[in-house]
Amino acid sequence: MTANTDAYAELMAFQHETEALGQIAGRLGWDQETMMPAGATPQRAEEHAAIANVLHARQTDPRVGEWLDRAVAADAVAAANLRHIRRSYDRTMKVPARLAAELARTTSLAHRVWAQARADEDVAAFLPMLDKVVTLRREEAACLAGDGDLYDALHDDYEPGNKSADLVTMFAALRPRLVALRTAILARHQPAPLRGTFDEAGQLKLSRLLAQTFGYDMDKGRIDKAVHPFSSGSGLDVRITTRTSPTDPFNCFYSTIHEVGHACYEQGIDADYLLTPLGNGVSMGVHESQSRIYENQLGRSRAFTGWLYGQMRDTFGDIGVTSEEAFHAAVNRVHNGYIRTEADEVQYNLHVLLRFDLERALVTGDLAVADLEAAWNDRFLADFGFAVDKPSNGILQDVHWSEGLFGYFPTYTLGNVYAGCLHAAMRAALPDLDDDLSRGDLARATGWLRKNLQRHGGLREPRATIIHATGAEPSEGPLLDYLEAKFGAIYGL
Amino acid sequence: MTANTDAYAELMAFQHETEALGQIAGRLGWDQETMMPAGATPQRAEEHAAIANVLHARQTDPRVGEWLDRAVAADAVAAANLRHIRRSYDRTMKVPARLAAELARTTSLAHRVWAQARADEDVAAFLPMLDKVVTLRREEAACLAGDGDLYDALHDDYEPGNKSADLVTMFAALRPRLVALRTAILARHQPAPLRGTFDEAGQLKLSRLLAQTFGYDMDKGRIDKAVHPFSSGSGLDVRITTRTSPTDPFNCFYSTIHEVGHACYEQGIDADYLLTPLGNGVSMGVHESQSRIYENQLGRSRAFTGWLYGQMRDTFGDIGVTSEEAFHAAVNRVHNGYIRTEADEVQYNLHVLLRFDLERALVTGDLAVADLEAAWNDRFLADFGFAVDKPSNGILQDVHWSEGLFGYFPTYTLGNVYAGCLHAAMRAALPDLDDDLSRGDLARATGWLRKNLQRHGGLREPRATIIHATGAEPSEGPLLDYLEAKFGAIYGL
Repeated sequence: MTANTDAYAELMAFQHETEALGQIAGRLGWDQETMMPAGATPQRAEEHAAIANVLHARQTDPRVGEWLDRAVAADAVAAANLRHIRRSYDRTMKVPARLAAELARTTSLAHRVWAQARADEDVAAFLPMLDKVVTLRREEAACLAGDGDLYDALHDDYEPGNKSADLVTMFAALRPRLVALRTAILARHQPAPLRGTFDEAGQLKLSRLLAQTFGYDMDKGRIDKAVHPFSSGSGLDVRITTRTSPTDPFNCFYSTIHEVGHACYEQGIDADYLLTPLGNGVSMGVHESQSRIYENQLGRSRAFTGWLYGQMRDTFGDIGVTSEEAFHAAVNRVHNGYIRTEADEVQYNLHVLLRFDLERALVTGDLAVADLEAAWNDRFLADFGFAVDKPSNGILQDVHWSEGLFGYFPTYTLGNVYAGCLHAAMRAALPDLDDDLSRGDLARATGWLRKNLQRHGGLREPRATIIHATGAEPSEGPLLDYLEAKFGAIYGL
Repeated sequence: MTANTDAYAELMAFQHETEALGQIAGRLGWDQETMMPAGATPQRAEEHAAIANVLHARQTDPRVGEWLDRAVAADAVAAANLRHIRRSYDRTMKVPARLAAELARTTSLAHRVWAQARADEDVAAFLPMLDKVVTLRREEAACLAGDGDLYDALHDDYEPGNKSADLVTMFAALRPRLVALRTAILARHQPAPLRGTFDEAGQLKLSRLLAQTFGYDMDKGRIDKAVHPFSSGSGLDVRITTRTSPTDPFNCFYSTIHEVGHACYEQGIDADYLLTPLGNGVSMGVHESQSRIYENQLGRSRAFTGWLYGQMRDTFGDIGVTSEEAFHAAVNRVHNGYIRTEADEVQYNLHVLLRFDLERALVTGDLAVADLEAAWNDRFLADFGFAVDKPSNGILQDVHWSEGLFGYFPTYTLGNVYAGCLHAAMRAALPDLDDDLSRGDLARATGWLRKNLQRHGGLREPRATIIHATGAEPSEGPLLDYLEAKFGAIYGL
């Protein structure tokens, strides 16, 4: 071995341990949302801070810089590993320790202030904290951006290589066709919703069946209840959560399928990449493409809902709709609403576009925090045609800004766009896929995703990951075509 | 502030973070036994190794030695903190990193080999691994002992300040009276055991009630099922596990009360000591004194079992015994058996004495691993009057030696002895305690323990902790007096 391959081996051994510690930190978060006794909160904050300090010290360890300078990549996998470690190291080193610590403290506090303000419907109580968070994140962005765009510097942490100028173009192309589709649908008669009793045990049993049907490996994961569903962990220990609502079983089923999409991505990554930088989903947008294609393009398809209809009747008896067609329409009901996370496929991206424009203006300095609520409410009325009735249905609904997650929202729509591209490519490769889906057989669909996307983990950059899987540059066209065809059929447009 | 109090403050800030990381490592163990999916095992090993390396690096951080050399204790609490940190630092620094790593690797492997050997009843498969473990631990003991006793050097890790010469004296005084009591009891007619159906839901519900009755704070803890019951964590997050057996509800109830004793000790420590060296139970022996007094002197008392009898009849209906007296006798049934963890109060310590003598001979070099099985079987026959029928009922029954835990076993009997002393002092302070116990009211009993022992955590050395609580030097007398009186009454001796 030469000195340079030694440097690579030493760096990877160090990184391996860092990745393992990252898994531990993530599982601490899982525990907090599922298992932790309420009274443990103050101690848990100390524990989180301790493991965060350990991880930060490793990320800024001067040996990492020396190894990176000397390491030579012997192959594409090594090159990708070095690219990930280099990017993370450079980002961390550009931000002064004082600012990083101040951000951690402030967002932790802001998160609690936001939760209370939302409960109290009290925007004024939150805005001073939000102003601090925006100020600090703008300061961080300035450290990171150099001569570049401030917003891009933050967005790059969630979607490496992606530029907001491209997002602006893509979102400009999405918006008119989404608005036209929404307008046409809302002029039509609405399909009937489900009726009936949906006991929790039945919902949890069926959500477990759905998880396994979509390929979630329960031997390397588990399902628990949590207030907000999430997926957590990588490699051999990827856990998901779900929730139930007595009147809305779709909430349970489709949030389960969504989290299973995230989890299957992590579980599907090549075992050789375990506890390396390639052993995690490559970006938020690509991650979301997996959760969305499982949940929407596959899970809400006419063929699959035909199978699910039978399962629900077997589990719950009379559910108030009496045909597969009516069930499919009920699953895909388009309805007015304030809340992004409850939005249907047609309107979801309009919620994201609103947030993208507002947060970009906050970061670039074109919008003051003091003017944010008015800007939100004006834009919501213009986009959705009805007024926000209370802050928890408007500016206070999402957790993201309180945590300083500026640049994150557009990855949701990017995920939807990527899911549209992947779905078109999958259908071209598997023209008779509906035969499988109508039997509740997802093996070929998820096998296609695993083979073409999931197993590669972080080997390629996010956009290149999609191109590798689909053979084409990503664009919003396939998503829009899919939405227009699907909802056109349901609503007779 | 002077430079010397700065050193103390810096050391304690560092230690605070180390303690928080220790809590995380402990919770990783809890997760492994309760929640972890089976397929995660290989990844979990990497995670354990990573956090163990972080903790080891902190324990051997040269700054700790420098801080210790400069720090000055301003009060008794600071002096105790420095004593704990100094002892841990000196121990760790005396063992070469190579040996520590070799021990970690070997015991991890030996544990797996032992589990398989026990399942296969194959002693020969285990002995070569055990020989390696003994060799390495003897090597470690030589590093630690200097001119002192090899066994004491290992035992000191579990019971600081305790010497095996004192144990030999104490155990020599215990043995004849225990043997005489056992012989007298086994000549008598055995009381009837329980009969009936004990469904799991009822057992878990009643075990929860018992935990709360004994003062376990569910707001800072939780109860889950595990193969082997244990208590885990300190401060605001102390979790216990239990198990159920359809034919033996006492297994569930008394292992719950036992773990509640451990957990209440941790929960009862002064909040000022949170995440400091004083914020944990001070030794294995003192810890066991709490689990034992909750389980035996209180939980198996005539007064308390009178209350429990009513609870069990309310929960399960007919349980096959029809009076409080008969129930108390069933709870305290003395019976022949091979397994230490299933032994009654009278015979338990005889199991420990056997192990103490054998492991001490292994560590001092007076007994070869090759001769251990014969030594065990001879001694068991001599002590218990019947022969070991298979290795899983003999030499392979306990996990401890595979994990290298030599010097640990005697802390179980030390805990029983300490519990006897504490119980005598408690009864002297609360002469009408039985009135409370017969109503299922443990508040004064556990309050006495909290006030006199638990809240002090690691403030005093283990033996001094007992002396502070009882006002007397610990001795085996109170335990023996208690056992002879209690079992004399039950068996009409």
